[in-house]
Amino acid sequence: MKLYFAKGACSLVPRIIINELNIPCEFESIDMKTKMTESGKNFHDINPKGYVPTIVTDDNQVLTENAVILQYLADHYGATLLPGTNDFHRYQILEWINFIATEIHKNFSLLFKPQYPQEVKDIQMSLLQQKFAYVDKQLSKTTYLSGDNFSLPDAYLLVMLTWTTHFKFDLNSLTHVVRFFNMMLDRPSVKKSLQEEGLHMHSSS
Amino acid sequence: MKLYFAKGACSLVPRIIINELNIPCEFESIDMKTKMTESGKNFHDINPKGYVPTIVTDDNQVLTENAVILQYLADHYGATLLPGTNDFHRYQILEWINFIATEIHKNFSLLFKPQYPQEVKDIQMSLLQQKFAYVDKQLSKTTYLSGDNFSLPDAYLLVMLTWTTHFKFDLNSLTHVVRFFNMMLDRPSVKKSLQEEGLHMHSSS
Repeated sequence: MKLYFAKGACSLVPRIIINELNIPCEFESIDMKTKMTESGKNFHDINPKGYVPTIVTDDNQVLTENAVILQYLADHYGATLLPGTNDFHRYQILEWINFIATEIHKNFSLLFKPQYPQEVKDIQMSLLQQKFAYVDKQLSKTTYLSGDNFSLPDAYLLVMLTWTTHFKFDLNSLTHVVRFFNMMLDRPSVKKSLQEEGLHMHSSS
Repeated sequence: MKLYFAKGACSLVPRIIINELNIPCEFESIDMKTKMTESGKNFHDINPKGYVPTIVTDDNQVLTENAVILQYLADHYGATLLPGTNDFHRYQILEWINFIATEIHKNFSLLFKPQYPQEVKDIQMSLLQQKFAYVDKQLSKTTYLSGDNFSLPDAYLLVMLTWTTHFKFDLNSLTHVVRFFNMMLDRPSVKKSLQEEGLHMHSSS
């Protein structure tokens, strides 16, 4: 398998799952400005949408879309992270993935783009604060997002939390989110993944 | 089963799948301003996130998030719409759902909200045009989004296309999208669903 990634981007999520499950995998970085891969290929020839994460499976199939790559990885390499389609808990885990993808990840997108005015970025920040407050409520009841065990959406939430450090988010009042963030930063698969991408971030606990 | 919906909103997508598969289902509308249900309940007590679609399964479990509800419906009631986890085509279908959820649906969100300035809505419109152009390219090769057979993302795309009629989108140059839109408007499950929500929209073909 191969994962195309950009440093610190949301492709860090499948990397954490790949490390969590010890899946043999090559990693190749993309220059998101030029859309060239590390080995000099045009990334649009691999994924016409031009974004990461993109994986190439061992059968040479290309798969895009973070939420779907995560399901594929769990279904094929780590049944413990995602029960089968006969278990309702599967859909509760997927619910959290989709919530992060659409309500958190997509609301972050504008913050990274210079063409949006500050007043709009302020609206997005306040929206995101509300979404993190909802997450905090969940984490006041459970250790991980979907219960007592680590699963796919936890890796996704962790990466979103690393992004909050680029902006002036006030997470201090969200004590359960802060507890989760520190716990995840101490998780071996997360530590390994951050190190592999040359990212320096440590738990404050 | 029960589906909580708002007229013309994205809850129309699972309704189409419910009609497509003839799943016995009650429908209850939500007033999105007051967040009260048709029968006078506070919708936040059912889904704390306050948005549709939300389903209550026959086992009395609540499930939210459009992309996940679609998977649940197909996995439980209509295997022909979504192959099992051992078939790579499952992930290609889910890829399209996620693309629509994150790249089309979420980019529409701002257009409906008065608090965003027109210049930002213009950026979103031009982004959406690019996404629909990508969809057009796919539909130049296949009858439906994920191949020759109707599946979940087609219902999702149809609903997004009904939204384009509220804004000044120029779809005319996207001939394959227009062909798809007309074909879907003639589909019995779509006709029935539009009628049930009191929406008047007809194919121009």
